[in-house]
Amino acid sequence: MRQRNKPWAKEKLADYPQYVIGSPDQWKGKWHEVFEKKQPLHIEIGTGKGRFISGMAKANPMINYIGIELQDSVIVTALDRIIEEELPNVKLMNVDANNLPTFFEKGEVDRVYLNFSDPWPKTRHAKRRLTYKTFLEIYEDILVDQGEIHFKTDNQGLFEYSLTSFSEYGMLLKYVSLDLHTSNFEGNIMTEYEEKFSNKGNRIYRCEAQYR
Amino acid sequence: MRQRNKPWAKEKLADYPQYVIGSPDQWKGKWHEVFEKKQPLHIEIGTGKGRFISGMAKANPMINYIGIELQDSVIVTALDRIIEEELPNVKLMNVDANNLPTFFEKGEVDRVYLNFSDPWPKTRHAKRRLTYKTFLEIYEDILVDQGEIHFKTDNQGLFEYSLTSFSEYGMLLKYVSLDLHTSNFEGNIMTEYEEKFSNKGNRIYRCEAQYR
Ligand SMILES: C[S@@+](CC[C@H](N)C(=O)[O-])C[C@H]1O[C@@H](n2cnc3c(N)ncnc32)[C@H](O)[C@@H]1O
Ligand SMILES: C[S@@+](CC[C@H](N)C(=O)[O-])C[C@H]1O[C@@H](n2cnc3c(N)ncnc32)[C@H](O)[C@@H]1O
Repeated sequence: MRQRNKPWAKEKLADYPQYVIGSPDQWKGKWHEVFEKKQPLHIEIGTGKGRFISGMAKANPMINYIGIELQDSVIVTALDRIIEEELPNVKLMNVDANNLPTFFEKGEVDRVYLNFSDPWPKTRHAKRRLTYKTFLEIYEDILVDQGEIHFKTDNQGLFEYSLTSFSEYGMLLKYVSLDLHTSNFEGNIMTEYEEKFSNKGNRIYRCEAQYR
Repeated sequence: MRQRNKPWAKEKLADYPQYVIGSPDQWKGKWHEVFEKKQPLHIEIGTGKGRFISGMAKANPMINYIGIELQDSVIVTALDRIIEEELPNVKLMNVDANNLPTFFEKGEVDRVYLNFSDPWPKTRHAKRRLTYKTFLEIYEDILVDQGEIHFKTDNQGLFEYSLTSFSEYGMLLKYVSLDLHTSNFEGNIMTEYEEKFSNKGNRIYRCEAQYR
């Protein structure tokens, strides 16, 4: 996501500790205390401007959500949405997904969402893809047994790669859609990138992969 | 494949026993005797008019091929190609894939090709799809350990279904291409259906699935 220089972003994030979790390692093993209700926890990695995570939180009050995003200049927009909508079941974390096991206990997360992750098209950058095996290890570390990754992208190369990466890791592919917007999938919540690229005419790919 | 009434087809097939194997059960366990050379054996199921299998046989003289097709009125066209090209490394079988284990010993087949298999789009017909689990059992029965299925289709629904069916069976997806004709896959041999549907503008999907 294009990063505009927003020198005030870090300070603004710090101003809303009820939405943006400042020292997430302190909640390891007790994330339910952070939310009003003790209920399943779904996280999105690379949340961007937060359209998906806030839409999901509004549509599914019985689930707690955390949006995780590396760039402070991007996640501040997600914060604006959450402030405006006063959603009790969504929080944000301005951290790197590589560090997730320092923030979550094994089994503390019920589902991982990956939406329009950076494609890193060059083979020598494959390790940076959020569906590379080292990331699949990280998600497995924090997910419940038989936890799932729900993945969307318009990037053909990343989708092809990710299907084989999930498979090689031994995961079960449960649903594969090669054109989400003409499929019978119900209740789809669009992300910023999804709207932009589907308006350009790109197909949206989606799958669910389960650890086994 | 549309079936024209060709009352003479069965007789013509019987007239070329050097190409169309009449009683395939007699070769179970000794298929290499049927061919000039003892070398790996690849079979295609639902060969249709034989463009793929004869093209592969010509391109890969170090492999033996068998094209398997249920309809005599279709496989006669495949026979014409083989007669004309006098290929020593390809044979045909006018049988039902359901009976493959009566014709091949476990481990006798090195690879299975499925090209543009009938899609059977209705859920209640899923069992008829050549990538349904009972067929995956049949192929496993006759393939070498870690044998592979190479699958092409233009049918989105069948491809989505097949990816999950391979995965559910525990197979490893090795390559997935969501647009074969723009990919860097080399040496593609087109089938009749592939030419027809790609000329219509359809994308061709391809994957390789390996037993493990
Ligand atoms: C292409 S954007 C997609 C944003 C949003 N999901 C959407 O669909 O509109 C990918 C986002 O992932 C974030 N990202 C990439 N690697 C990350 C990591 N290791 N940890 C957290 N966020 C990451 C990037 O900063 C970027 O905002
Ligand atoms: C849609 S056609 C495709 C033909 C060819 N592979 C192509 O790509 O041009 C599918 C073929 O599979 C054959 N077929 C379907 N079920 C079969 C079975 N159980 N055993 C052998 N052949 C079968 C049909 O008769 C038909 O000719």
